[in-house]
Amino acid sequence: MALTIHGDLRSGNCLKVKWTAEKLKLPYRWVEVDVVGGATRRPEFISVHPAGQVPVVVFEDGRALAQSNAIIFYLAEGSKLIPTNAFERARMLEWMFWEQYSHEPYIAVARFQMAYLGRARETLEPKLFERGEAALRRLEQALKGSDYLVENRLTLADIALVAYTRVAHEGGFDLDPHRGIRAWIGRVETDLAIAV
Amino acid sequence: MALTIHGDLRSGNCLKVKWTAEKLKLPYRWVEVDVVGGATRRPEFISVHPAGQVPVVVFEDGRALAQSNAIIFYLAEGSKLIPTNAFERARMLEWMFWEQYSHEPYIAVARFQMAYLGRARETLEPKLFERGEAALRRLEQALKGSDYLVENRLTLADIALVAYTRVAHEGGFDLDPHRGIRAWIGRVETDLAIAV
Repeated sequence: MALTIHGDLRSGNCLKVKWTAEKLKLPYRWVEVDVVGGATRRPEFISVHPAGQVPVVVFEDGRALAQSNAIIFYLAEGSKLIPTNAFERARMLEWMFWEQYSHEPYIAVARFQMAYLGRARETLEPKLFERGEAALRRLEQALKGSDYLVENRLTLADIALVAYTRVAHEGGFDLDPHRGIRAWIGRVETDLAIAV
Repeated sequence: MALTIHGDLRSGNCLKVKWTAEKLKLPYRWVEVDVVGGATRRPEFISVHPAGQVPVVVFEDGRALAQSNAIIFYLAEGSKLIPTNAFERARMLEWMFWEQYSHEPYIAVARFQMAYLGRARETLEPKLFERGEAALRRLEQALKGSDYLVENRLTLADIALVAYTRVAHEGGFDLDPHRGIRAWIGRVETDLAIAV
């Protein structure tokens, strides 16, 4: 499939798609979108996909798909990145929905405020840090005694969750107490050949 | 499969699981969990599933699964509620991830604040309403000229999105201007035999 990825290289959600395409050796064209500059709200971007969010992928026939975790699920269908066992596949999706609901809105949002918009940690809502820390504690617990989140091997759950966890410090989170998370980040970065 | 659903009958996320089980004629036992009373934060609930959130399903062999949209994906695997075409399946997941990221955090949260906690609309963050209205506008646009969100027939995308859209008025949203949404709600309620 000839694939165009519209994304922002600083966005973990967009990097998930890049890493998955590269891991699966899918050739792609990258179109950089300046999110902070408001590019996703302009009519020319809305015409690509009505959601007005990145990442968006567009295929040769013009069909477009948004939502990072839906995109990587589609790209990886039939590959080793998705468990063949239905229950394990559901556990992978459980982590991916949890990522978007209970992890990204705190850890990615704190990072966006601090690293993109230059706000100081003290000016952000304490709730961001309380809930982000709770997400990190749950992740640490899951990674105690397991190298990966599902089936003890690399799946889309790891790709989805490593994206913002590996840059959590840019949003004021401290990963030092979380040994399991730090070892897992190193492992997944190696698996995905992410330059660190 | 012998299925136990732990949930709160006022929660749209929990009702998605109930409706899907009923549509698929899967027998289940319902265990009511008092979310507002703090039941999901108690150790006995955390021992069922470490996420500390409802819904959670537990199977006969003790395996547990959380996240409403992951649960309904698992229950519906191989059924007509999931498109067999991979791209249409991905579009269904796109709507389901969008629901959890761009719809539920505004529409369900405003309803929770008003209907569960008794807060007045004026005391809530205006952002909840701006973003919730934007989500409703996008849904209305998608339903113009289409009876359902994906493949023009009932899929999990409709179940996921109808859950909180049908009670949006309890959170201070006005569905009157959204004719397409109102017709779709009626259609999906009929399909799922939801008493109205």
